[in-house]
Amino acid sequence: MDTAPITPPSFSPGCPDYVQRVRDSFASQAFMATLGASVTDVAPGAVELVMPFREDLTQQNGFLHAGVTAALADTAAGYAAYTVMPPDSNVLSIEFKHNLLAPAVGHRFRARGQVLRAGRQIVVVQASVIAEQTDGTEKPVALMQATMMRVGT
Amino acid sequence: MDTAPITPPSFSPGCPDYVQRVRDSFASQAFMATLGASVTDVAPGAVELVMPFREDLTQQNGFLHAGVTAALADTAAGYAAYTVMPPDSNVLSIEFKHNLLAPAVGHRFRARGQVLRAGRQIVVVQASVIAEQTDGTEKPVALMQATMMRVGT
Amino acid sequence: MDTAPITPPSFSPGCPDYVQRVRDSFASQAFMATLGASVTDVAPGAVELVMPFREDLTQQNGFLHAGVTAALADTAAGYAAYTVMPPDSNVLSIEFKHNLLAPAVGHRFRARGQVLRAGRQIVVVQASVIAEQTDGTEKPVALMQATMMRVGT
Amino acid sequence: MDTAPITPPSFSPGCPDYVQRVRDSFASQAFMATLGASVTDVAPGAVELVMPFREDLTQQNGFLHAGVTAALADTAAGYAAYTVMPPDSNVLSIEFKHNLLAPAVGHRFRARGQVLRAGRQIVVVQASVIAEQTDGTEKPVALMQATMMRVGT
Repeated sequence: MDTAPITPPSFSPGCPDYVQRVRDSFASQAFMATLGASVTDVAPGAVELVMPFREDLTQQNGFLHAGVTAALADTAAGYAAYTVMPPDSNVLSIEFKHNLLAPAVGHRFRARGQVLRAGRQIVVVQASVIAEQTDGTEKPVALMQATMMRVGT
Repeated sequence: MDTAPITPPSFSPGCPDYVQRVRDSFASQAFMATLGASVTDVAPGAVELVMPFREDLTQQNGFLHAGVTAALADTAAGYAAYTVMPPDSNVLSIEFKHNLLAPAVGHRFRARGQVLRAGRQIVVVQASVIAEQTDGTEKPVALMQATMMRVGT
Repeated sequence: MDTAPITPPSFSPGCPDYVQRVRDSFASQAFMATLGASVTDVAPGAVELVMPFREDLTQQNGFLHAGVTAALADTAAGYAAYTVMPPDSNVLSIEFKHNLLAPAVGHRFRARGQVLRAGRQIVVVQASVIAEQTDGTEKPVALMQATMMRVGT
Repeated sequence: MDTAPITPPSFSPGCPDYVQRVRDSFASQAFMATLGASVTDVAPGAVELVMPFREDLTQQNGFLHAGVTAALADTAAGYAAYTVMPPDSNVLSIEFKHNLLAPAVGHRFRARGQVLRAGRQIVVVQASVIAEQTDGTEKPVALMQATMMRVGT
């Protein structure tokens, strides 16, 4: 039995300039700048972001707020979906479900989105948030299953 | 047939100082200060927050980022659950599911959490985010169904 | 503060024969017959089903299986969405999130779906499953937040 | 970048007789017998079920009903969680989120649950439902992210 519930298929990019398209759109997200997040990888069907820990992003116990991990995961998921969409597309988050797996403690957080199913209109994406510790270890702190929609431009 | 899927029952506060307890915990959430959010109502089983629109909280189309509406809804939901928990409790978000109903456009956003089922350990909460327009109209922009857990202190 | 996170707006039927359309489609769902479910109410934006308890629908503790409450809630949600869709439409479940609130014990179960937001393509619905006891009391046993899509015929 | 959002860790069984425990509990689920489902694999952190297609389990288009794929996925997920729980445990579904990826068409369906995070009380599981075609091909038709809770016996 495979360990992963679904092995993601290989995806073809939705258009030749999919990397630039993701980077340009990400750069226009004021909230990502507010969080200090940046794009570290863009591949067909997958996008990765990183964000250093900051104290002004925490909840009452000093952990990263669940809204911040959700923002990172949703953004990684949305852009992962965007990579497989044709040129005349915008991507819209319809909904996401976010499980908090462990206290979000770490010096840096990495969110990865991976498309699992790309329909013509609806794209289903999984995303995770991994907390990197200063000693080099890391642990998953959040897991998202999200539904994205293509809308014409 | 009722219009609401479930009519929330009346809840008793989990302890006499439930209002102060919510306000104190909220005040220690650095991310809520970063967002500019504040608590406007605390009742047994329900909490309401408000947050003015700010451009540094937007996504690529200038709407409030879904991570921000999720942060508000999750926080309102968590504190709604907290109001019904006994004194020696902390509240933990296990997971939430967040539907984006409409572009989050408005000058002020109001998040309301309402407990629908309070078990001894698990509390199920609905939360919504309403966008208030400058002309006095308002519309729901997000809807959350969340699962909160009581953990002992 | 309102108790409900969102007060459902009034909806207009998507076509004049919306009641018959729901009843006809429901009648062609073999699995609903297998479960012994029937439609008890169809209104613009809302549909109600009932299903008597049966021992062959239970899980290991003798409660109604969560898959059965999910099937009822999803079906009520889908048809609630269908009532607001124009004539040339089919309704498709994109996804649903289902919270189990209490052991599903009762002699009859009632699932209600209520549209909360009807977009042109995407319809967001809440649904609940209520267990009716032989003594006349009832309790909510499951709560769903679902996303339905209109597809052209 | 890894393709999977989270690589499941290796899990140790929660007790030596975890396989028998899953099989015994499954055998006492009347609804699984009603569906014609059986257990095909039990490993630490993972369980697989299969179910042949039957026309009395379909929705209005002749596809397997989403409630059936949800029942299979929830059951596989719950038993996957059960394999990592200590002897004096029962497993309870708190909630699940289920995406329908494609029309559930096939001659046999396989549901796999895989634990992604096992806390002391809360276990987060992913599950998928794969449709097997008569020509030997297969495709994912549903994807679930579920939250299970350990309760003492």
